[in-house]
Amino acid sequence: MRTYLECIPCFFKQAINTSKLAGASQKTQKEIVNELARLIPNFPFNSTPPEMARLLHKIIERKTKKSDPFREIKKKSNKLALGIYPEMKKRVRKSKDKLLTATEIAIAGNIIDYGVKSSLNIEKEIDKLFKQDFRKADKKIFDYEHFKKDIKKSKKILYIGDNTGEIVFDRILVEELSRLGKEVIFAVRSKPAINDALMEDAIDCGIDKTATVIRSGSDAPGTILKYCTKSFRKLFKSAELIISKGQGNYETLTESTRPIYFLFKAKCPIIAKHVGAKLGSTILKKM
Amino acid sequence: MRTYLECIPCFFKQAINTSKLAGASQKTQKEIVNELARLIPNFPFNSTPPEMARLLHKIIERKTKKSDPFREIKKKSNKLALGIYPEMKKRVRKSKDKLLTATEIAIAGNIIDYGVKSSLNIEKEIDKLFKQDFRKADKKIFDYEHFKKDIKKSKKILYIGDNTGEIVFDRILVEELSRLGKEVIFAVRSKPAINDALMEDAIDCGIDKTATVIRSGSDAPGTILKYCTKSFRKLFKSAELIISKGQGNYETLTESTRPIYFLFKAKCPIIAKHVGAKLGSTILKKM
Repeated sequence: MRTYLECIPCFFKQAINTSKLAGASQKTQKEIVNELARLIPNFPFNSTPPEMARLLHKIIERKTKKSDPFREIKKKSNKLALGIYPEMKKRVRKSKDKLLTATEIAIAGNIIDYGVKSSLNIEKEIDKLFKQDFRKADKKIFDYEHFKKDIKKSKKILYIGDNTGEIVFDRILVEELSRLGKEVIFAVRSKPAINDALMEDAIDCGIDKTATVIRSGSDAPGTILKYCTKSFRKLFKSAELIISKGQGNYETLTESTRPIYFLFKAKCPIIAKHVGAKLGSTILKKM
Repeated sequence: MRTYLECIPCFFKQAINTSKLAGASQKTQKEIVNELARLIPNFPFNSTPPEMARLLHKIIERKTKKSDPFREIKKKSNKLALGIYPEMKKRVRKSKDKLLTATEIAIAGNIIDYGVKSSLNIEKEIDKLFKQDFRKADKKIFDYEHFKKDIKKSKKILYIGDNTGEIVFDRILVEELSRLGKEVIFAVRSKPAINDALMEDAIDCGIDKTATVIRSGSDAPGTILKYCTKSFRKLFKSAELIISKGQGNYETLTESTRPIYFLFKAKCPIIAKHVGAKLGSTILKKM
């Protein structure tokens, strides 16, 4: 997905929020914003939005000397999500269609995004998740029948993770896939990118107990293949089935011809429009 | 009020929305956004946000050759607001404290902002206004007693208008002031600035029947005194009481030592913080 003009206000919001989290002074925040502004006129808009997020992250790191401003928030997200892991497992155990429930839970976990500013918010969101039924109205693009069939046919599945906290929800689906006899390779980013999960998060959240966890090579909040490792690209090219979690992976992989199922909540109006769904929809879509 | 870093995402939103309204092509929209981006590093942040909005308007006008992209929206806002004028008059007539009700109505009209995208939205908002009671919770900064006293003492009042549509709500307060024997001078912008009211709007909405309508000289969505006419500045300096409507006038006049009452809805989180109220609050404050 290319970058739209409407992405620009969000780049600046991200610059301001992340600079603050990194403890930047007012002066440094302004310098970061100025550097971002100078990038805009030359930024190729046929690039994906995470390309810009990647450049922005480099500016913030250089200016603040902080490589991972979201570290504390990420730890907290993981801890909170792990707290409800038993409840999620119970839901799957009781379900008539365990794969469906595990898939719904994995997508619901995608609400935990970098917008999360306090533990209160994340607790509220998780609480809401368990009170709500997964409504049909939110699931207009939810191709579960094909997903189920394609999973049945596959032995080895590449699962590209997204945010911290969310990966506990992913663990539910990973474990269900494993129970169905599938081998799962779970890919995380190689370097910090907003609140995206790294190797340490995958281990903290116990994904490694069931899946083989690998680093994709990505240092962006998405999967920009040209920056990924050779071994990840090889795996990506040969995988029978790929599960791509979250908006960032969607933004960077929509042009791919590989058998990818995109699982995410459409939280951004531009992405919602691109995928053809209402804002807030639950998306399960093969490209 | 100075410009905050948090204002920057909004500048870009405004650039994109207004460019689209002006019928700019994708390419022209991008050029406008690029020009705005180039202004950021050199923009003096001790200027007020409407200073930037003013520069942005000049870029859009130069690039699209449209000097008033909001013309149609403005006409529609006026028309819709005029449609409920009789209902508003009835409210005041029935009220025990007519000045209070007229003041509440005038402030409520400030919800009609440039965010308004369709007639449906504005109708909904107006409908909501009449269903709601003016709740105390929203009125933490509502210094009505002093306002009432100061009005009693004044003979001549300078009333600085804000948006189209909203000026019909202002007319209610202007007429109440007139009924109390006050002479009201109602100032509008001299040139188009977002959806702000011009002389033609004041006439369309019948303000001129009760008040003397003047052009302030402003070509910004606010009142930047150095760009105003000499005669407006003279009036501003000598006025016994000034009523300043809306956020843009607040942003540009907070540093003034004149006896100004600011009447607005705090729709922007930065302004809400600056005035010390919750987002969405009804503000009546003397600086």
